[in-house]
Amino acid sequence: MFDQLTILAPGLLGGSVARAVRERGLARRIVLWARRPETRTELRSQPWCDEVADTPEDAVRGASLVVLATPVDRIAELAARIAPHLPAGALVTDVGSTKAVVARLGHAALRADTPFVPSHPMAGSDKTGWQNSSSTLFERRVCFVTPLPDTPAAAVERVCAFWSALGLSVAVVDPDRHDEIVAHISHLPQVVASTLCAFLAQKDPSWRAYAGGGLRDTTRIAGGDPVMWRAILEHNRDEILRALTQYQDQLHAFTTSLANRDFDDLAARLERGRAYRSGL
Amino acid sequence: MFDQLTILAPGLLGGSVARAVRERGLARRIVLWARRPETRTELRSQPWCDEVADTPEDAVRGASLVVLATPVDRIAELAARIAPHLPAGALVTDVGSTKAVVARLGHAALRADTPFVPSHPMAGSDKTGWQNSSSTLFERRVCFVTPLPDTPAAAVERVCAFWSALGLSVAVVDPDRHDEIVAHISHLPQVVASTLCAFLAQKDPSWRAYAGGGLRDTTRIAGGDPVMWRAILEHNRDEILRALTQYQDQLHAFTTSLANRDFDDLAARLERGRAYRSGL
Repeated sequence: MFDQLTILAPGLLGGSVARAVRERGLARRIVLWARRPETRTELRSQPWCDEVADTPEDAVRGASLVVLATPVDRIAELAARIAPHLPAGALVTDVGSTKAVVARLGHAALRADTPFVPSHPMAGSDKTGWQNSSSTLFERRVCFVTPLPDTPAAAVERVCAFWSALGLSVAVVDPDRHDEIVAHISHLPQVVASTLCAFLAQKDPSWRAYAGGGLRDTTRIAGGDPVMWRAILEHNRDEILRALTQYQDQLHAFTTSLANRDFDDLAARLERGRAYRSGL
Repeated sequence: MFDQLTILAPGLLGGSVARAVRERGLARRIVLWARRPETRTELRSQPWCDEVADTPEDAVRGASLVVLATPVDRIAELAARIAPHLPAGALVTDVGSTKAVVARLGHAALRADTPFVPSHPMAGSDKTGWQNSSSTLFERRVCFVTPLPDTPAAAVERVCAFWSALGLSVAVVDPDRHDEIVAHISHLPQVVASTLCAFLAQKDPSWRAYAGGGLRDTTRIAGGDPVMWRAILEHNRDEILRALTQYQDQLHAFTTSLANRDFDDLAARLERGRAYRSGL
């Protein structure tokens, strides 16, 4: 489908894009760039990589599709750096977990003939880095594509087709709406799980040995990369604050009912939670 | 090891005890009783069941070990009901998730020559009922055994040996201490996950289609049985209130730092959460 796919700063997601594209034969050539020289050396021996460039500028030469796979706070500067070096007609996308800021800054950084089509494949793991990447990471996952009104429709279509070809269900939504949605279904769970772990870390260390499958599942995402999550919190602060505050209201109401021994209300809350969970 | 194992009201845990005991040959005979006649009929055809009695009194006749597998709020009344019918020397245990109330009421309900040794195998699932029970449910899990000072040491030892033989690591702790521990590592995560689901249930239903593996993992336990959890909330109200209030303080501090854009503090909180999670 694409002549040359360039992935800048491949980690878990960027590496998985490369592996899945190679496995499905969706690009004739895969070119990578990583910031650290040691990473570049390691990547050169990967079968899902045809060339590793020493600079982002070199990596995008000849690219038909560029995937920016940095944390969200580095996407705009990387877009600005490659902008003058992109061949006319190249498409640029990303895999960042926030979209409102990324979409606007990315759009502003790039030329009109190399449009930015912001993307967010909703796949991840508590394991990070290209070493943990996998060609199956995207199977049965959702990918948000969040164009601005100015983004050319043909570019949006091609990027949607790319993610579909990798096995993702594509949802095209407005960047602000995206950030509201993921604040609730992804960022809030992360804060809840990380805070639960940080709280339990203050307690008797011997309790860890007693942890069951429930605690392990509930906190799995707390193993995620703090650097990546810090950037997400910065970018999506307003929506996360809103979701977090409303969640705390619910938790407060639960606590009040427990204090008041209103077990009918508590049972109703548990039942509403179960009904939602069974619909996932 | 035991001549006759009797399991009263087998659900997910009771059924799993029966299956694991049968597989490991730990009882010559397994007798069950269930409250609903339809369940008794269904249980009769299970290969891990030798006899299904029509009453608890009949079921415990000839028993060497009795496992009370009801929700925690029904254990004491069931113990009182079977007390006059237990053969001298029979041991009684349970699989309830709270222990302070259960240990005291169970002890009071039973005779001195048929001692109650309260237990809590920390295994479970969002799936409920004996239909979902499994002989492998207890593998690599922890079982709390929570005797009172009056509980005969020999009885405690035999019950500990029973759970060990089923593949669990046994931890003998005071019932009050048990309830404090599980309020933190089991009941609090349940409240957090159920409340997260109940909160998200108020939002746009279309968002459910976007849920990733992170949300699914974080909320899996919210699928648990509300009837069982209501009883746990009643029994362990004080300890859960304490843990929940402290957790809310942490969540409030996180929210304040986010409102203040104190991203260094937020990153430190995420890092503490990750460190704890990696130690599980």
